[in-house]
Amino acid sequence: MSDATVAIVEVGPRDGFQSIGPLIPTDRKIAVVNALYAAGVRRMEATSFVSPSALPQLADAEEVLAAAQALAGLDAQVLVPTARHAERASVAGAKHIAFVLSVSERHNRGNVRRSPMESVQEYRAVIGSLATGMKIRLNVATAFDCPHEGRIPIADVMTLLDRLVPIEPEAEIALCDTTGRVTPDRVEALFGAVIARYPQVRAWAFHAHDTYGLGAANVLAAWKAGVSIFDAAIAGLGGCPFAPGATGNVATEDLAWMFEGMGVRTGIDVHRLASVAEEAATIPGAQVGGRVRDALRARACRIEAVT
Amino acid sequence: MSDATVAIVEVGPRDGFQSIGPLIPTDRKIAVVNALYAAGVRRMEATSFVSPSALPQLADAEEVLAAAQALAGLDAQVLVPTARHAERASVAGAKHIAFVLSVSERHNRGNVRRSPMESVQEYRAVIGSLATGMKIRLNVATAFDCPHEGRIPIADVMTLLDRLVPIEPEAEIALCDTTGRVTPDRVEALFGAVIARYPQVRAWAFHAHDTYGLGAANVLAAWKAGVSIFDAAIAGLGGCPFAPGATGNVATEDLAWMFEGMGVRTGIDVHRLASVAEEAATIPGAQVGGRVRDALRARACRIEAVT
Repeated sequence: MSDATVAIVEVGPRDGFQSIGPLIPTDRKIAVVNALYAAGVRRMEATSFVSPSALPQLADAEEVLAAAQALAGLDAQVLVPTARHAERASVAGAKHIAFVLSVSERHNRGNVRRSPMESVQEYRAVIGSLATGMKIRLNVATAFDCPHEGRIPIADVMTLLDRLVPIEPEAEIALCDTTGRVTPDRVEALFGAVIARYPQVRAWAFHAHDTYGLGAANVLAAWKAGVSIFDAAIAGLGGCPFAPGATGNVATEDLAWMFEGMGVRTGIDVHRLASVAEEAATIPGAQVGGRVRDALRARACRIEAVT
Repeated sequence: MSDATVAIVEVGPRDGFQSIGPLIPTDRKIAVVNALYAAGVRRMEATSFVSPSALPQLADAEEVLAAAQALAGLDAQVLVPTARHAERASVAGAKHIAFVLSVSERHNRGNVRRSPMESVQEYRAVIGSLATGMKIRLNVATAFDCPHEGRIPIADVMTLLDRLVPIEPEAEIALCDTTGRVTPDRVEALFGAVIARYPQVRAWAFHAHDTYGLGAANVLAAWKAGVSIFDAAIAGLGGCPFAPGATGNVATEDLAWMFEGMGVRTGIDVHRLASVAEEAATIPGAQVGGRVRDALRARACRIEAVT
């Protein structure tokens, strides 16, 4: 056993819930947040402040954020796409803002009706208006691959980061594999390149999807490249509701299982987390993924059958 | 793109089919073998010569082997646990024998009612009786972890290999993660150790299970340690029929997707292979795994929905 640690940022309540069609009762969301915390989760993307008409599932952002903030020692970030929504989040008491933009022009326009460079200006406005002490995370979507434009060259990511990094070097920057189509070699290459080019950046994070079964392999590649902060969603929530069978984020319980198995501490109780995953998987409309949940349940059945 | 290549050994017709309860008609097995070949598969564990009363699913070993041998350029290995069954395979025309034993005493006794050291003697007998030109693969099960005994120390694997390697250095040796519980660090450590200790061994292979979602990550670790031969099963077949939800071998289409995505040639047409996986997944009693099959199907649906 080493004394190495990684931080897992649970994004199920945001990236997971937002892709679920039927509205999840706020009480149930808060129950999941509390259960995740009880299993050892200490970082979470708790919700998103976006237009409630565009994303009715997250219209209860204020309530979910308040519940998350009530948990001692939980670092609850909230996703915002514009300065206006950052202001709403701030008024609601957010202490950690995650600003999102995409490298891909078409993906960014689809999400926020702006060019990436317009989103850079929006980010500058967000940073300029932040209250003292507010933590900032920058989520760079389609950093590897875009559903519309395909493979994103490293140079395109650099062009954007050259503008973003100087605005706030204290920001933690997450590079996101939005489609799940990146392979470990490219994860390693991009993180190697950005860590070398921007030594002033406080921390890098990786947001992996498991759509093509490479979530854990890609996380491992990022970890080997020096990253130690990883987004993941309980039960692998985050699949596209219009693409049955295509799962979403890498499952939190799978990452916790992998790292704990390697002697790298996550602070998470894997078996307890697997129970939370079982519960989250029963949310109507949930597209689930990951393997550890099934494997531990099957193992428990087998042990029961033997004894 | 590099000019690197890996060999994927398709074990679905053996490890996959053997774990399926309802008897698969021999014609259907042969259709899968032919379809795998058409998708570019050139190595396969086609069947196993074992006691038909112990494993009725593989009682048609002669017929399936004959069909596989009829495919030009297909290297079809057959699994055998004893000298007697190796003789049967030889009479049936096998040109490539895969002898299996376990590092774990209890697992080996469960499989072949012998101690591992008795199986070493059996292996010696097999090698002694082989016809000239017969290729040999040695499958070392529970090389990392045993369902009964848990984590297997590297020293135990070495103790066994110290006896096995001198018997036939020309054998290709596969280290098998029978339970799927190994983590990438230990895969890298064991392969690093054996490659250094036994330079005379012609080739090493890795047999991964995806039960805990680490199949691809573990394969990647083995590849980084210098291994370039990987077992995999179409559609991730090979789950335990008594443990619903616990998937089996790493899916062939997932490995082909990963390596081809990294510019490492497998000789396999991934989209064609995914179609074979769709078909194999419909075999009654099949426990399926892997992600690429679902992801490509979902993507096809989405593209269809858009156009």
